[in-house]
Amino acid sequence: MKLLRFGEPGTEKPGVLINNEILDVSAFGEDFGEKFFETDGIARLQDWLKKNTSLPKVKGVRIGAPFTRPSKIICVGLNYTKHALESQMDIPKEPIIFFKSTTALVGPTDDLIIPRNSVKTDWEVELAVVIGKKASYVDEKNALDYVAGYCLHNDYSEREFQLERNGQWVKGKSCDTFAPMGPYLVTKDEVPNYNSLHMWLKVNGRTMQDNNTDDMIFEVPFLIHYISQFMTLLPGDVISTGTPAGVGLGFKPPIYLKVGDVVELGIEGLGEQRQVAK
Amino acid sequence: MKLLRFGEPGTEKPGVLINNEILDVSAFGEDFGEKFFETDGIARLQDWLKKNTSLPKVKGVRIGAPFTRPSKIICVGLNYTKHALESQMDIPKEPIIFFKSTTALVGPTDDLIIPRNSVKTDWEVELAVVIGKKASYVDEKNALDYVAGYCLHNDYSEREFQLERNGQWVKGKSCDTFAPMGPYLVTKDEVPNYNSLHMWLKVNGRTMQDNNTDDMIFEVPFLIHYISQFMTLLPGDVISTGTPAGVGLGFKPPIYLKVGDVVELGIEGLGEQRQVAK
Repeated sequence: MKLLRFGEPGTEKPGVLINNEILDVSAFGEDFGEKFFETDGIARLQDWLKKNTSLPKVKGVRIGAPFTRPSKIICVGLNYTKHALESQMDIPKEPIIFFKSTTALVGPTDDLIIPRNSVKTDWEVELAVVIGKKASYVDEKNALDYVAGYCLHNDYSEREFQLERNGQWVKGKSCDTFAPMGPYLVTKDEVPNYNSLHMWLKVNGRTMQDNNTDDMIFEVPFLIHYISQFMTLLPGDVISTGTPAGVGLGFKPPIYLKVGDVVELGIEGLGEQRQVAK
Repeated sequence: MKLLRFGEPGTEKPGVLINNEILDVSAFGEDFGEKFFETDGIARLQDWLKKNTSLPKVKGVRIGAPFTRPSKIICVGLNYTKHALESQMDIPKEPIIFFKSTTALVGPTDDLIIPRNSVKTDWEVELAVVIGKKASYVDEKNALDYVAGYCLHNDYSEREFQLERNGQWVKGKSCDTFAPMGPYLVTKDEVPNYNSLHMWLKVNGRTMQDNNTDDMIFEVPFLIHYISQFMTLLPGDVISTGTPAGVGLGFKPPIYLKVGDVVELGIEGLGEQRQVAK
């Protein structure tokens, strides 16, 4: 199933994508957030859809993030070998994790707002995992039980804020519009090959990132196990699993985004995004 | 006004402390969270209290955190000179900020759970600032307009997770029970001297931290201004302003918490906390 949310920012309604058509599931009575995931909402919605077969179709609307604001967005740093090398950092012995403010969350085609005083705004196509149930000290072998689904994420990063402003990466990861998610959350039953998905990103039509999730250093089950040793994951929480090589920082000289640039990205089976820098 | 929440974890009710008595303000109909602060809840509650003068008194109950789960807990690192030195780190040129998972939030006398595999669980008495309205690119001179109030916070930290597990401090700051807040939120009108408050912490009766918020490197208005350049602060968000010298890490040899240890702490005017390590 593909879950999405449509409508203006702050008043999105829940929908599902079936046969490339958006169906309004507002009548189900729940938005896609912590409580929905916690109470087995995906299975309940699937049952409800079998009984409610003539739902309103929706066209020409803005698409929002496919879930409401989570308790946290946890990102994994340097999780692809070549990206670690292009960033001139060591390949990590265990996962690097950092947070992104949830106020950065936007829809997949919302404008990227280049922050005030930014000179190094950069892109990062990433596979994001959405947690389905509360997770603490999870075994790696059971870790996928805690996954609701997957979605596409552009982990925008201001490299000066992140790396040159006195420590801790969160500073360069949390600006408004820095976390476009979607267009939809694909439930895990439809993504058995989460560790073998083509992923790509273009800036103004030029391919910058072109890789596959099979190149991850630490895979999804290990990441859930690992992170759950340090904090409790709640239903609806997001783990963004890191970006492959090809970010602006890695070019010589580096390439950063400027007003008017168009960023397009996608992951096989998880849809596409397009942002215009403003 | 002193806002607090009482009752069992997850089902706390809102209250106020007046003349050292807890009054149940459930009849006001709102909990102390983002929406309450966003809609000028403090002023509305003050008005409501003038009209509702015979409220139920509450005794012998657990006290929870004084607000519901915020969108984020932002901590400031190394914000007292001697603490930076005891941590063997440079005095920061601009604030270091990191996040703490909001799942760490607990009440002021809840047990500290020493995490599995922890060998370096440490304490940090801190002044926490609770944000009162949405804040983005705030001027330093207006920054206090964005404050709802202040509360006491023990920013528990697992030093091995924080400093020796491959980068980014959030890993050592986010375990369950690592953010006792309260006993109450004191509204800012009652804390004009936020930058001159005595603060202390004892372990098993021995004074470990004994300092004053006047020793902060970056003060509250600057911190709000600074952080709001990198992310949007929401009503109810927490900024924890850093700890003075005297943490376990700073002793030679270091002193870390073990099961049975009793941690007591306080800030002048903001009440006291007591945790037992389990």
